[in-house]
Amino acid sequence: MTVIALDAMGGDFAPDDVVKGAAWISLDTTIDVIIVGDEKKITDRLKELKHNPEHLSVCHASQSIKMDESPKDAIEKKPDASILVAARLVKEGKAEALVSAGNTGACIMACAKTFTKIPGIHKAALASVYPTETRRGRKNDPFSLILDVGATINVTANDLVTFAIMGSSYASRISKNPKPRVAILSNGTEEIKGTAEIVDAYRMLKDYKRINFVGNIEGIDIPKGTADVVVCSGFTGNIVLKMLEGVSETVMELAKYAYKTSYLWKLGLVMLRGAISQLKDITDWEQYGGAPLLGFESLFIKAHGRSKARATANAIKVAAKAASSGLIKDISTTIKDFSFV
Amino acid sequence: MTVIALDAMGGDFAPDDVVKGAAWISLDTTIDVIIVGDEKKITDRLKELKHNPEHLSVCHASQSIKMDESPKDAIEKKPDASILVAARLVKEGKAEALVSAGNTGACIMACAKTFTKIPGIHKAALASVYPTETRRGRKNDPFSLILDVGATINVTANDLVTFAIMGSSYASRISKNPKPRVAILSNGTEEIKGTAEIVDAYRMLKDYKRINFVGNIEGIDIPKGTADVVVCSGFTGNIVLKMLEGVSETVMELAKYAYKTSYLWKLGLVMLRGAISQLKDITDWEQYGGAPLLGFESLFIKAHGRSKARATANAIKVAAKAASSGLIKDISTTIKDFSFV
Repeated sequence: MTVIALDAMGGDFAPDDVVKGAAWISLDTTIDVIIVGDEKKITDRLKELKHNPEHLSVCHASQSIKMDESPKDAIEKKPDASILVAARLVKEGKAEALVSAGNTGACIMACAKTFTKIPGIHKAALASVYPTETRRGRKNDPFSLILDVGATINVTANDLVTFAIMGSSYASRISKNPKPRVAILSNGTEEIKGTAEIVDAYRMLKDYKRINFVGNIEGIDIPKGTADVVVCSGFTGNIVLKMLEGVSETVMELAKYAYKTSYLWKLGLVMLRGAISQLKDITDWEQYGGAPLLGFESLFIKAHGRSKARATANAIKVAAKAASSGLIKDISTTIKDFSFV
Repeated sequence: MTVIALDAMGGDFAPDDVVKGAAWISLDTTIDVIIVGDEKKITDRLKELKHNPEHLSVCHASQSIKMDESPKDAIEKKPDASILVAARLVKEGKAEALVSAGNTGACIMACAKTFTKIPGIHKAALASVYPTETRRGRKNDPFSLILDVGATINVTANDLVTFAIMGSSYASRISKNPKPRVAILSNGTEEIKGTAEIVDAYRMLKDYKRINFVGNIEGIDIPKGTADVVVCSGFTGNIVLKMLEGVSETVMELAKYAYKTSYLWKLGLVMLRGAISQLKDITDWEQYGGAPLLGFESLFIKAHGRSKARATANAIKVAAKAASSGLIKDISTTIKDFSFV
């Protein structure tokens, strides 16, 4: 049985929807969840919900961090914040992975403060899953993983190599893709393209057999899904991820405009409802289960800030799957192996 | 009368479509075009086309550079290549701007070899126009300008500032937007977000009154068109531009899939034909007229490699408009003024 520490106080709909997600998990799986936060609020909420008490326990934390608080100040001034208490449960071995939908900066700082880095890894990376053009046959699912999408502004070649190893390990365990295609995002596919760090990382990865490194990809390959794991700096990853978000919003705006402008177009959109809903299913972030923070001896899955019960439950499932899959051990072994190349 | 030097030998459809574009221009405008390249091929082609010989002249160049040639080798080994001959015409004052649809690397190298940099500018920037969500009222056209999309991998704060000045000057002259909103693309809107170079450039631009600097924008703002001029390194610009291209292709693929999958969806798409064709008009790169290379005392407009006659003609028009608008003088004055801030 896998034990997950869940920060009940993080997220736009915390604690009500977070606790509801845990309640669902208790009925549906054998995962044990320690719900961390304001004990009274959590137990009051649990009383309203159908749940299996055998799989749920509550750990009190007297403080919590708001979504818009300064992460640095909050982590310093609130030692009993739910995210820190939950992280300590994982660090002490009482839980196998941490899940939170809270303030991203504060979550990452809580992990950095509490967890130990895997030897050989200098920077942890936040990885995000995004939908790509479906290619049935070649790939089971239409998702790619991109990392870092966190706070790394300047990355070294070594950082990019460790991101590649961590991303490959995560994708092979979570997406059931034994040989995920790993690529570096650059301004050209040739080996000499990109920053000096990218050129060096390419050279370091190209002969390394434990990773299915397919070289550099370009921006055009992001929506196509040419690679299963896309490696870049957090600066670049942030721009890519937010552009994808912006494009979806723009498409929705254009559809709204078409819907309002002409009866014929309105009818056309109604007829395409099935196709649009298929597309919505694919691009539905609630089913992704959250973004893993990779590079520590302990695992953290960041659920989206807007997570309701379903998204929370999916994040818990992904965390349990990753924890029981030997992900951390695999990353450690590969990093150690790589140092001898 | 503005004189444009046109490289007849560059582009996938050179020289036939390039010459055709010049022939159209001669009938339609008062722009004078010097068509540079293989004299026999050009005059033979002109004989087949309706044109006004008063506005056209031919300048022979015995060599030409292929689309897939190594730019560096080609520029070194072919001193009489059409792009170099045409660039020299501009440098010598015989033409006011250069237009080519040829090998981008070779074109930029020809300019770097022939033209003089504007004092105070260390790196030239290639700027590209891209379509954004239309916002009628706030902005006359749905396009934004992004620069650099060329070869700058590492940019200094000074480079970013000069890109901002050049982009603002170009947008105000070409897009009839007297106060274009200029922004730096970063991983957050706050003043402290981004690389050290971005943070410095933000500080340098924020109090500078000659530019309508609106701060940092994020990836989500690219398709929205939050800024009229987007400033970034060539590395980032390349990824952004190619992602936009990739997203369009993906949308087309999804539409094809929907068309084939169900009769209802097919009918829906047929009904939306008008909306799709409006969208195609907006995103039609052939009407953009090409990408300006900014930073030299002479002006170069890079037409798309796939330019046919219409796109060539539009590139010539943009070049003439930019040349007669006092663009270079405005950039020089602003750069000089900025140095005193």
